[in-house]
Order: sequence, then structure tokens, then C-alpha cells
Amino acid sequence: MPQFNDTELTAAVIKSFEGTPNPRAKFLLQELVKSLHEYVRKTDLTFEEWDYAIDFLTRTGQKCTPIRQEFILLSDVLGVSMLVDAVNHRERDGATETTVLGPFYVGEHKETPPGTDISAALEGERMFVQSRVTDLKGKPLAGVPVDVWHADDDGFYDSQKPTYATQGPSSRARFITDADGRFFFRTILPCSYPIPTDGPAGEMILQVGRHAMRPAHVHFLVNAPGYEPLITHVFIEGDKYLDSDVVFGVKDELVAHIEKRTDPLMPDGKPAPAPWHLMTYEFRIKPGHGMAPKPLMAATEDA
Amino acid sequence: MPQFNDTELTAAVIKSFEGTPNPRAKFLLQELVKSLHEYVRKTDLTFEEWDYAIDFLTRTGQKCTPIRQEFILLSDVLGVSMLVDAVNHRERDGATETTVLGPFYVGEHKETPPGTDISAALEGERMFVQSRVTDLKGKPLAGVPVDVWHADDDGFYDSQKPTYATQGPSSRARFITDADGRFFFRTILPCSYPIPTDGPAGEMILQVGRHAMRPAHVHFLVNAPGYEPLITHVFIEGDKYLDSDVVFGVKDELVAHIEKRTDPLMPDGKPAPAPWHLMTYEFRIKPGHGMAPKPLMAATEDA
Repeated sequence: MPQFNDTELTAAVIKSFEGTPNPRAKFLLQELVKSLHEYVRKTDLTFEEWDYAIDFLTRTGQKCTPIRQEFILLSDVLGVSMLVDAVNHRERDGATETTVLGPFYVGEHKETPPGTDISAALEGERMFVQSRVTDLKGKPLAGVPVDVWHADDDGFYDSQKPTYATQGPSSRARFITDADGRFFFRTILPCSYPIPTDGPAGEMILQVGRHAMRPAHVHFLVNAPGYEPLITHVFIEGDKYLDSDVVFGVKDELVAHIEKRTDPLMPDGKPAPAPWHLMTYEFRIKPGHGMAPKPLMAATEDA
Repeated sequence: MPQFNDTELTAAVIKSFEGTPNPRAKFLLQELVKSLHEYVRKTDLTFEEWDYAIDFLTRTGQKCTPIRQEFILLSDVLGVSMLVDAVNHRERDGATETTVLGPFYVGEHKETPPGTDISAALEGERMFVQSRVTDLKGKPLAGVPVDVWHADDDGFYDSQKPTYATQGPSSRARFITDADGRFFFRTILPCSYPIPTDGPAGEMILQVGRHAMRPAHVHFLVNAPGYEPLITHVFIEGDKYLDSDVVFGVKDELVAHIEKRTDPLMPDGKPAPAPWHLMTYEFRIKPGHGMAPKPLMAATEDA
């Protein structure tokens, strides 16, 4: 009959995963048990605290919807997302730096013609974005889908608004690079904004006295076949939260100088409405595999 | 401008919790960050694995309902619940051993008259349970509420069945100890059963090649004012899963010999329907505080 003291218990739980068919899944699960048990032992976690954790995790899961991912947000504010990014991108080889996906990516965006104003319906200072995708040697890559998304002038993503279901995407689109690797579009200058604080992750941040702000940025997801997917942001130079991003996502190389312009024409030769901003940023991507969302556990079933 | 390598990142995240008002919450959060980051670094967790974890946690949260707690089940099968139990009960001082609460406790049960057959509507071998609650010196404790619950002959708790909302509790009740600390009731002999495998925790157990079974048991929750709440089971001697309980919950002292009886009368003098079983088990509880469900974070708001 088993009768475990606390260290015997840990050994028994680790052993219970011995038969996991997939060796990687076995390693991850056994290390997870070690890590969770060490945490409980080191903190002498009380029942009330365990109960709080169960409730916190439950509320986090229940806050998720197809267009809101509260567990990603939690991973972000605990620095876990950026650490996963760091351990997977130790060697950049000159490729553009990466940062968090964030909780507001809603899956593949709708392909949109070059130059489209993706924030046409929104108030805000107008911005023209011109960009190019190349390989590590600077060779332009044509036909590459690039998903872009950013918050509006009030700091909200389209998917956070009740009108999203009926009005569809705003400040969110997919562009395809041309023969010269280029893509361009119109939008508004994004502003810094708080992460949502109406869920467990944001509430926790406020309760511990952290601010909830992210510096202004535009998200880019470049996913070319035969290349490593590039998940990144371009940040707006001068933002007051660049030094204290709540999700630890800022990297020097990702901060862009945005030019204030008064030219009557934008770079594609069409009229500019008023003074406008120009964001110019190029992406270099490295060889690799495209997105491979095959779940780990499914892999064990195949084994 | 911050530009973190992976160890600088961990230090920055830990520092971000420096202003947490409640010292205990600060310690728990900073240790959590260390633990999560060490796990990611040690495993070189890939994006696909991180993504799998996010999805797994989300599905776990979304499987929870007011009468089903999938995160508790996950904590149980990872041995975390029993470890929290162990680190909080290092000194028993002769008090009855504790075990997991499990995912099927639905809150305070309905007070029920002594001797009631709590499984009257169910098929199964009849069992009479007689018990007593005392302090550490053996002094009987009167007026103590004791919640009891167990699975039916098919291995399901009442709350797992679609009829629960309309038919109310079955094999689930609260008894109050009499002047001599005693309580007794009728029910059926429970059987071993699988944890639910239609959610992420149970699916994981099957995918890694573990069995999902728990040995037969009756849950007891003894909650007397001025005493430590006793959360435990009494297991049925001879069950084939006593050595491999999927939630690691068995302790020698909690295994009871169940007598097979043919007496025409049960211990309360009422007729026995047929051969029946007798469970006799006494609970000793130690001084302490009753259930104190005050959440940790709420405490920081008061500070």
C-alpha cells in the first residue's frame, strides 16, 4: 500500500509518467511535475493559496473566447512569452528580432490590396507604412503574406469592441509582398494602451502595483514558406512606456523612427489628407519551417 | 531602452513584482516567475509546445462548471493536491490522516436526519456507515457537521449526471454528530471508478498510458468550529487500485475493513434488507481554524 511522505510522493508522480509514448512529452511532463512540486515545497503553499490558484486559473480559462486569449496575456505579463521567444531565437543570424504574439491575433487575416487604409473608419493621425521582406542576404521575397494589426487611437483592438462581429476587422489586414518584396498600406499612428484589466491577468497586474501599459506598436506576422515565421512588432520611437512595457516585449532594433511629413503626396503618389507620418521598416527572415501547429499530444497518439 | 537576454529578462520580471503590497503574495509571485522561467529554460520549450500548453490550460478552464472542477482534477493527477496536503499536515498529532478534496465537492451539503439511506434510489449492495468524531484525546464532539459523498455503483457522482439539476443530490448529504459525537447513515458500497476522461486532465492521463482509476472510497469533510477542517476519504479494503490511485490519495490508515453482515437488523435496530456491509470508522480532529476561504489577492487590496 502506498503511504507517501512529500518526497516519495514526487518520485511516485514522476514515475507515473514513465510510460509516456513520446519521449519529449515524457520529459516535459516529468519536468513539470518536478517544477510544480518544488514550488509547493519551497513555498509551503497553504490550502487557501492553492484554492486561490485553482480559482484564478479557472477564471483565466473562462475569460478566453475565440477572439480573446487570457492565458496568453497571463504568459505575457509573467515574462514567459518573451522567454519562450528568447530561448527559441538565440541565434538571429541578422534576421529581424522577434517579440510576443500577444492575445489579439485572431488567425489568418483577410488579404487586402496594396495601399489600403486599414483604419479608414477611425479617428487619428494618418500614417503611411512602407516595408519590405528579404532573406538574410537582402534578397527581396515576393508573394509573402504579412499579417498586420494594431490598436486604435483609444487603445483598443477591433476584436475588443462589441461591433467586431458585425463590422469585421479594422486596423487588421494581410498584405502580400510584390515582386520587389515590398508592401505598403495606410493606417493611423497607434498609441500606447493598457492591456485588458477586466480579466484575471490584468487585475493581478494592478493588484501588485504594476502599470498595465504597452508602448505604441504595430504587430507584424511574416510567414513565408521555407522560412522561420517572424512574429514581431515595430514600436514607435519616443513612447514613454518603451522602458517599462508590461509584457517585456521591447527590443532596441524594433523601435522605429516615425517621420512627420507635410508632403502633399504619399509615397504611392496619392494625395495626403494633412500632415502625416511615415513608418519605414524592413524585415529580414531566416530559413526554417513555416508555422507547424501540430499538437504535442496528438504526436504521442501517432507514436 | 531594455534589451533582455533570457537571464536579464527573468530578473526584470521578478523586479516588476517588487511593489506587491502583501509580502506573502510578493513571495509567491516572484517564486512563480522563477519557477516558470526555470522550466522554460531547462526544457528549451518550443513555440508549438507553449501553444499546446496555452490551449490545454484554456480547455481546462472552460471545462469547469459550478459542479465540475477540471483544474482540481489536473492538480490531483499531477500529485499537486496531495503534496499541498502533505506540506500542510506534517504534524498530525494523532489526528486522522487527510487526502484530496477531489473535483466533486459541490459546497455545503443539505442536513439530513440520522440513519437516512442517501442512496435510496440506487442499485447496489447496501452498506451501513457508523462513525464518531472526537478530539485528539478521544473526547466526543457533538453538533459537528460532516459532509459525505461518494460515487454510485457505475462510478459516477450525482453531479456528473444530467439528472442532477432536477433530481438533486444522491449519495451526498450532511450529518450532524449527536451528543456522543456519533453519526450514521445507510448507503451502497461504492466501487472503484475512473476519473472523468472527457476533459483535458483525463485525456492526458490516457495519452501517457496511465490508468484513470481511483480505488473505492467515501469522502468525508468534517468541519467543526475551533478545529482544523478534516478533508479525507475512507477507502474500501481489498480494492485492486489501492496501490495505484490515479490521484495518489491512498494512506494506510484510511483503508477500512468492511464487514459483510447477515444480521437481520442494522445497528440502529431497523431491519436489514438482505446481506449488507458495515463500515466503522472514527475521525479524530485537531484544534485549529475552520475553513477560511479569504482570497490572497483580496488581502492585498485591504493592505
